[in-house]
Amino acid sequence: MTTSAAYYTGNKKFSLEQVTVSPPGPGQVQVDVSYCGICGTDLHIYLGHMDKRVGDHRVIGHEMSGKIAAVGEGVTGLKPGQNIVVRPLDHCGDCPACNAGHAHICHKLKFIGVDSDGAFQQKWNVPAHTIHVLPDGLSLEHAALIEPLAVACHDVRRGRVAKGEDVLVIGGGPIGMLIAQVARHAGGNVTVSEINENRIAFAEKLGLAALNPKSVDVGPAIHSATGGKGADVVFEVSGSQPGAELMTAAAATRGRIVMVAIHATKQSVDLFQFFWRELEMIGARVYESQDYDAAMALLAEGVIDAKAMITDIGTLENIGSSFEALTQNPASMKTLIKIEA
Amino acid sequence: MTTSAAYYTGNKKFSLEQVTVSPPGPGQVQVDVSYCGICGTDLHIYLGHMDKRVGDHRVIGHEMSGKIAAVGEGVTGLKPGQNIVVRPLDHCGDCPACNAGHAHICHKLKFIGVDSDGAFQQKWNVPAHTIHVLPDGLSLEHAALIEPLAVACHDVRRGRVAKGEDVLVIGGGPIGMLIAQVARHAGGNVTVSEINENRIAFAEKLGLAALNPKSVDVGPAIHSATGGKGADVVFEVSGSQPGAELMTAAAATRGRIVMVAIHATKQSVDLFQFFWRELEMIGARVYESQDYDAAMALLAEGVIDAKAMITDIGTLENIGSSFEALTQNPASMKTLIKIEA
Repeated sequence: MTTSAAYYTGNKKFSLEQVTVSPPGPGQVQVDVSYCGICGTDLHIYLGHMDKRVGDHRVIGHEMSGKIAAVGEGVTGLKPGQNIVVRPLDHCGDCPACNAGHAHICHKLKFIGVDSDGAFQQKWNVPAHTIHVLPDGLSLEHAALIEPLAVACHDVRRGRVAKGEDVLVIGGGPIGMLIAQVARHAGGNVTVSEINENRIAFAEKLGLAALNPKSVDVGPAIHSATGGKGADVVFEVSGSQPGAELMTAAAATRGRIVMVAIHATKQSVDLFQFFWRELEMIGARVYESQDYDAAMALLAEGVIDAKAMITDIGTLENIGSSFEALTQNPASMKTLIKIEA
Repeated sequence: MTTSAAYYTGNKKFSLEQVTVSPPGPGQVQVDVSYCGICGTDLHIYLGHMDKRVGDHRVIGHEMSGKIAAVGEGVTGLKPGQNIVVRPLDHCGDCPACNAGHAHICHKLKFIGVDSDGAFQQKWNVPAHTIHVLPDGLSLEHAALIEPLAVACHDVRRGRVAKGEDVLVIGGGPIGMLIAQVARHAGGNVTVSEINENRIAFAEKLGLAALNPKSVDVGPAIHSATGGKGADVVFEVSGSQPGAELMTAAAATRGRIVMVAIHATKQSVDLFQFFWRELEMIGARVYESQDYDAAMALLAEGVIDAKAMITDIGTLENIGSSFEALTQNPASMKTLIKIEA
């Protein structure tokens, strides 16, 4: 039986191919993919920034939802027909990080959909340990948000956001908007700092306060709005030098800064403030199993405005156009690709 | 009754003056100062770096020990003759930091001996809340180490050093050496990184492993010595750009970096590593009451090599020479001034 798979082949190109899928091997699950969102990482790959890592014939995509088609030998507790999502992390099990219980940041972590083939294809074999079964009543369309939402749940958990705390999210892209909603649900008074007016309007549509650093000096504005205290938790999601400056400027004494962004270059950082106000900075990368559970629960409970977050749905046949559109459109938030036949 | 007080009068000068000391006011305690160590901050003041803050007629000094001479109205639980040390922090009681229970980093903190007169004088009136009574058997000479040792106890507590963890201390001055000894007592396997060969020899005399970054690439050396894991806790005490680089390079996945140093300028920091390996950075400044208690206990138990740490003892009459000597001598660790008449 042949099914369709979209291969990234380098230089902003995809090749739609008919492939013959093997049955799931021992310990594997075969998934009929329903939807798969386009992540910022997928865009980086599309733009050629990660060719060295992914090569020129790779099925990418990892923000997916689907149904179990078949289970391989030795797989228990899962059965065909179940609606599921995949937590796309494959760890080595034997490095210092795995040994310390931090398998999600394994020293030899393989990210499925980057380091091995991903979900922009109809049938997909994955390790059974990556599967989370969806609760009843959660649509497969909305479930495609679980992976990025799990990132946000991990970030908010790492930041220990508590009821009544003042929270600043620097950078209002899809991850920033999800963090803002999760932090608000945790009881935080959330403000988003974002330079793109479309995204500011989007934040306000979600009922979030938003400031544009092009017109407001956000650090003093946060201190002023909090009686001179500052933000108890700051999420740095911008990956920019101004973001690295704002994170220390806006934080309260003993404030926590969660480092979510991928800073491709070293930044100038005001280390004095860490000493003087006993700030904390906490790195956060991907998610652990419990973050997937939290994300599924929040989505099922309607805490996240999934309808607003999903701004486009494209097709596997025209996947290239969906990627191209994302590079052009500053108003879009999350684009899904519908994969199911 | 007149007693001697050494006033810093600007430009590396002290003026020894005979002063008339008032009796302790309500809520105050009058202390006969026994010994007072010279802190790095005192050296900065001596060198003129902090004239704007201290002015040109200030008794400095805060690493002291002494005896209660008299207690003012309303002071309970303290009596003349008790051996004591002073925790030289005077907080406002009504700022966001005080309200959140972090009075030691009060937004309007007055550091006694910098922002008001300190311990390089024979009789000293201080608020009763700053007093810690010494345990029996602890000499007043050694007790002058309690203030810097409390800094080290605070730093190690903030870093949550646990038994069996690998610890790197970047910078082997007095605070670095105290941190190294406290972290070792907490069960850490401690290495000190230090560029001064005299201080490396001192660390080895204390039984500590030491590396000189001028001859060894310390980051890879730490990873190699820990089976590829890295340092679980890194104390950045150097205040230098190479220190800011080493702290991320040497840390393990999920490693904690304690920011002890005062970085006078912004540094270039590899924020990517915070994301990728979920590092934590934790600022640490001065101490809380429990850190004083811990420091007194460690010193009384002989955990800290006080005899080795105290490399010189000068006199109040010749305080200027002791300061001058410290600016010249890279082999000295802690110089005390004997104050008692």
